[in-house]
Amino acid sequence: MIIAKARAVDGPKQSFRAAEIKRRNLDLMDVLIEIKYSGICHSDIHTAHGDWGEVHYPLVPGHEIAGIVTDIGPEVTKYKVGDRVGVGCMVDSCGECENCRKGEEQYCLKGNIPTYAGVDKYGEHTQGGYSTHIVVTEDFVLKIPDNIELDAAAPLLCAGITTYSPLNHWGAGPGKKVAVVGMGGLGHMAVKIAHAMGAEVTILSQTLNKKDDGLQFGAADYCATSNPETFEKLARSFDLMINTVSAKIDMDAYFGLLTLDGTLVSVGAPGEPLSLNVQSLIGHRRSFGGSVIGGIRETQEMLDFCAQHNITPKIEVISADQIDEAYERVLASDVKYRFVIDISTM
Amino acid sequence: MIIAKARAVDGPKQSFRAAEIKRRNLDLMDVLIEIKYSGICHSDIHTAHGDWGEVHYPLVPGHEIAGIVTDIGPEVTKYKVGDRVGVGCMVDSCGECENCRKGEEQYCLKGNIPTYAGVDKYGEHTQGGYSTHIVVTEDFVLKIPDNIELDAAAPLLCAGITTYSPLNHWGAGPGKKVAVVGMGGLGHMAVKIAHAMGAEVTILSQTLNKKDDGLQFGAADYCATSNPETFEKLARSFDLMINTVSAKIDMDAYFGLLTLDGTLVSVGAPGEPLSLNVQSLIGHRRSFGGSVIGGIRETQEMLDFCAQHNITPKIEVISADQIDEAYERVLASDVKYRFVIDISTM
Repeated sequence: MIIAKARAVDGPKQSFRAAEIKRRNLDLMDVLIEIKYSGICHSDIHTAHGDWGEVHYPLVPGHEIAGIVTDIGPEVTKYKVGDRVGVGCMVDSCGECENCRKGEEQYCLKGNIPTYAGVDKYGEHTQGGYSTHIVVTEDFVLKIPDNIELDAAAPLLCAGITTYSPLNHWGAGPGKKVAVVGMGGLGHMAVKIAHAMGAEVTILSQTLNKKDDGLQFGAADYCATSNPETFEKLARSFDLMINTVSAKIDMDAYFGLLTLDGTLVSVGAPGEPLSLNVQSLIGHRRSFGGSVIGGIRETQEMLDFCAQHNITPKIEVISADQIDEAYERVLASDVKYRFVIDISTM
Repeated sequence: MIIAKARAVDGPKQSFRAAEIKRRNLDLMDVLIEIKYSGICHSDIHTAHGDWGEVHYPLVPGHEIAGIVTDIGPEVTKYKVGDRVGVGCMVDSCGECENCRKGEEQYCLKGNIPTYAGVDKYGEHTQGGYSTHIVVTEDFVLKIPDNIELDAAAPLLCAGITTYSPLNHWGAGPGKKVAVVGMGGLGHMAVKIAHAMGAEVTILSQTLNKKDDGLQFGAADYCATSNPETFEKLARSFDLMINTVSAKIDMDAYFGLLTLDGTLVSVGAPGEPLSLNVQSLIGHRRSFGGSVIGGIRETQEMLDFCAQHNITPKIEVISADQIDEAYERVLASDVKYRFVIDISTM
């Protein structure tokens, strides 16, 4: 049994406290990772607050994990002690269903095992990356390329793959006009990745406050959705839109920005159902899709792509004592563009 | 000026009456068609009743038109007197926008000219196929293959292309599992076409009343949506679903029947917005699309495909005096599966 230091919450309205959690002894294929950095994702906040249903407390969130391998199980072949590695939103899946066999473990028909707030095959509640160590079966461990710093690598494991996967799947590339809705942690990664893929990127954000950053990240245009003229000016413009905003938006207005055969993909979902007029889709054979993270193979591909194109998130590194404050700032949209916890301060 | 006999309505709650309408003298590229048969589409009823907004009355509906060329303009090259021809839901478009240039005139950026209830480039209100003659520019006239009878050809011009186009666009074919929602005029064509394309077809209808017909049309399975077990049994089954039902349905329940990367395409729309949970799409990277009829080139392709595969709609031929009664029966879902007016009775 390995004891890891961690930061945990005990209930929906609780502050984080120092805690100790147990990590299992290494099974045959397990990798022990000393975590160096852990990103703070909006999902962490929703889960910690119980927004998405009942949660087992105490809870240690964190699914943007970067660290170093410090021990391996006897049958591990992919990693060795000292390797720079990452762990994203899932730590296991059935491995047998048709989706797993396709390398789309995120859509495992039996449900993948989330990095925290899940129950693993040992019957244990999974606990995430706000901790000093984690044990993960090697198939769900990613290799972090040498030229990506570990602090910057962490957010790639969720924000990076969540945006890379739909951009890849729906064919962002040269000659394609892509809009990114929202300029937060996910949005700013979507801009950088879509630009690197060769697409012409427009950012749609509520205000123009982050326009300079957006253009620096590679966007060709940046428009305020609070300005109704945006929806006239950009009507029927985009082949692909990545909606990173979880809040309810006027879907029909956004569909109107898609060209013939265009697709709007939501990577986050409001807690309540949304309303749309089917005519908005029928009128130009548009589609509305959804996507969640990516498979392990595609996550590795994304890391390698980011290394090749020198893409990293823009981050603000915080200490373990600042998690509560960081949550408040995320909820106030006061983050450029991802908080990453320096686990050495734990 | 050509005077045609027709059946017209004078307002939303009026019965059809005998009328005479004017058809323009042939312009350079025009074809004069003596209409033999005209199908009754649900859209005719919605438009005649004013369900879709204000309409110019008197109105002559009908956009499933089959007949014989009786005269041509001096520059017509595609048709000659005596040709068996059809006209569908549109009679013109701008011809210049990017969608028209792609052969997707149905998505003309300036708006295609609908066969009835539109205004054409001469400033005239268009009037449809419940009449003895129509004048149409040759580019919007279709050739009806010799082995399709004119009465059976008529519904292909709307019901046929409306279902062929999305089946074709979203790749129905061997190895694909396709569900058709609704077993009316559109639905029964979707079944025949998808089956001929090589897909394995399941029909989802409220009851099992039309099961024998459905299996005869080529479906491998037929399930009642009034039975909740249907949604359990068929969970994550289909690559493609064609929703022909215009009424509001529980979208999330239907999305649940799509497999990874599956798409549900609606070809009709309820008058009011519908509600859906984005999570239903995100969970298996599903898409929700919309589609309207097809372009002229694709409509000809559909007619040739139907001729090749001996596909025709199952129709009930009525006289011009029976239009009101037919409307009532369509609204009561009492039609197998398309009414076609014998224009010789006009």
